[in-house]
Amino acid sequence: MTGRQPPEVRLSPDRLARAALAYLAEPGDVALGALLAICEPADVLAAIRADLLPGTGPGCGDTPASRAALERALGRWRTRLPGLPEDESIAAACCGGGVRLACPGDAEWPSALDQLGQARPYALWLRGNASLGFACSRSVSIVGSRAATGYGGHVAGEIAAELGERGWAIVSGGAYGIDAAAHRGALAAEAVTIAVLACGVDYPYPAGHADLFDAIAAQGVVVSEWPPGRRPARMRFLVRNRVIAALGCGTVIVEAGERSGALNTARHAADLGKPLMAVPGPVTSAQSAGCHRIIREWAASCVTSASDIIELLSPLTIPDALAPGGPPQAPPPDSGDTPARDDLDADSARVLDALPSRGGAGTATIAVDAGVDLDTVLRCLGRLAGYGFIERCERGWRLRRS
Amino acid sequence: MTGRQPPEVRLSPDRLARAALAYLAEPGDVALGALLAICEPADVLAAIRADLLPGTGPGCGDTPASRAALERALGRWRTRLPGLPEDESIAAACCGGGVRLACPGDAEWPSALDQLGQARPYALWLRGNASLGFACSRSVSIVGSRAATGYGGHVAGEIAAELGERGWAIVSGGAYGIDAAAHRGALAAEAVTIAVLACGVDYPYPAGHADLFDAIAAQGVVVSEWPPGRRPARMRFLVRNRVIAALGCGTVIVEAGERSGALNTARHAADLGKPLMAVPGPVTSAQSAGCHRIIREWAASCVTSASDIIELLSPLTIPDALAPGGPPQAPPPDSGDTPARDDLDADSARVLDALPSRGGAGTATIAVDAGVDLDTVLRCLGRLAGYGFIERCERGWRLRRS
Repeated sequence: MTGRQPPEVRLSPDRLARAALAYLAEPGDVALGALLAICEPADVLAAIRADLLPGTGPGCGDTPASRAALERALGRWRTRLPGLPEDESIAAACCGGGVRLACPGDAEWPSALDQLGQARPYALWLRGNASLGFACSRSVSIVGSRAATGYGGHVAGEIAAELGERGWAIVSGGAYGIDAAAHRGALAAEAVTIAVLACGVDYPYPAGHADLFDAIAAQGVVVSEWPPGRRPARMRFLVRNRVIAALGCGTVIVEAGERSGALNTARHAADLGKPLMAVPGPVTSAQSAGCHRIIREWAASCVTSASDIIELLSPLTIPDALAPGGPPQAPPPDSGDTPARDDLDADSARVLDALPSRGGAGTATIAVDAGVDLDTVLRCLGRLAGYGFIERCERGWRLRRS
Repeated sequence: MTGRQPPEVRLSPDRLARAALAYLAEPGDVALGALLAICEPADVLAAIRADLLPGTGPGCGDTPASRAALERALGRWRTRLPGLPEDESIAAACCGGGVRLACPGDAEWPSALDQLGQARPYALWLRGNASLGFACSRSVSIVGSRAATGYGGHVAGEIAAELGERGWAIVSGGAYGIDAAAHRGALAAEAVTIAVLACGVDYPYPAGHADLFDAIAAQGVVVSEWPPGRRPARMRFLVRNRVIAALGCGTVIVEAGERSGALNTARHAADLGKPLMAVPGPVTSAQSAGCHRIIREWAASCVTSASDIIELLSPLTIPDALAPGGPPQAPPPDSGDTPARDDLDADSARVLDALPSRGGAGTATIAVDAGVDLDTVLRCLGRLAGYGFIERCERGWRLRRS
């Protein structure tokens, strides 16, 4: 549109349509979700432009009630048609300035989002170096009060750091308080962390977190269902919360007052059938009242440490024995057939290269750096440990001093 | 024995025998409990003196194994025969110096103790003004770490005081830390509190609690399975814990380290099928680790206040609507037939007399002072409120300024 940097961007019609639909419809609009479940995105967009009801009629589960709802939805979406950018601008917003678009079916699309059914995001804008799909294969959502106490911030940071050291990615909402403490704990552990925003990935909200989001993008990924430039709004935070809940293998609440928005995320996690956990605190603290309530009502498990959380989640992901904290004990390097570094298989060599020259790294970080999937990285780490190239450490894995 | 104050005490042979057996056998000895379930106490005592196995043989469930166990037990008990005081001394220890003996079947014997089966106490020594049996009809056991933090002591005291104000008696073990805070909270609320000791009721252990035990005796009752003069011993605390668990309608753990003795009481409560509750605290505090563990393992409910506890226990006792916090709303005093104070029925007059001239009192305190049972006091309180003599207050009930 501006023409200053003619974008050389090609998006398939369906990807472009998904992005355009995110401009027209608010994320979480189940009317659009229902249409996208039965029609191609480009057809839906064309129908909206033509003011025709798409994908209805016999065989589409059409009923007078759903037809009326679709008609209202069509009106809703068409009100934003005049403001819809040109295709080139949309394409540029999906592939410029370090931002990329992820759509259902992409390698990077987290399959966990498909659990949201008709409320599944139409598409996601991503900004950052980590692979969202891979990170979410072993992830914990940590959310809580913005008005966190010193205690809550400390605990959120410690738990996130230890989870990060043990190879788990941390998902949160980028807000002040518990969210920020969780992101920072993960960053300190050099782990992958994912900030799910209720505004465009280029829109620094809260403004004081612009640097934090840059740091997250450098080491993890900033995620949004809203197109770049979109501002946050009250309802958007609530809509966004379902994505936070879906992206974690489980959700941990660290401090929540009785009316905290974190309890909304908690409800989404429970609705998705995912493990919901809460960290207790002093009963004299109003900021722990929400956590205590969901524990008391048996909605949430009481967790006090990263170990508690991993114990609850591990049956859902990979066996404990394969986690860096547990043993992958490959044969000891005494059989004489330890290969030279140059003789390693390609995956193992890649994984070995991905280990930092000093200090340690978590499994997820190594996998992202090496560009291999989780099963492969775990197999290679076990093999490399068996050959004596690497060893386990507090933070995950490190090069062994030979 | 000393002869300075010739005791004019008469105990029935079975009561005297139960007391004597508590000198010979350690409380909680299930071999003796099994015998007492099938033989009269006096017969058991006579058999021990005669070195004969009592209550065995065909029809008594006798087996070679149980016979061997009984023979060993008989040897155990007979080792203490030489030190057994004369009957007169035993009787004096049961009825002198403000001490009394309670035996199964007595009006004051709490039926809850019968749940202990063969581990039921042989008898109890009581020191204090409250009726043990009555107090236990509406009681909460609160125990925890001796090395309590300021937080734990504060919470235990607050919860005990509020429970006391709402008519619940507080059972605990008289130890430093959480126990003392719970007793003191109840005393501050002018409620009944019960200290279950692991030594004689006249034996001040810990020594620093001599004044506390006197205060408990003045307003509640100090309880022991051990005869006066007996010293505490490590095993006795563990044996005693089952009585603390049995005397409460439920047990609340406020602060317990991973190896706290309070978790032993918790286990007894769970074994008895009674509600087990724990108060959470900072996850950074080792003194809350035991509480968090039993919550995490779903053994205990997470409670944060007296209201939480009452909500969990109330189905087991009296309907909430009858509790002083809820409404017994008798007809308003506008019908002209409000009786004069002298025209009240005897029970209502007694209950009215039991209300303190200033401040309020909990239902249990009023019932003890009035010497009526719980149903009666609740009925009378409702009637007196309806007539306008009394009104509800924070602490339970108070005289209405006319």
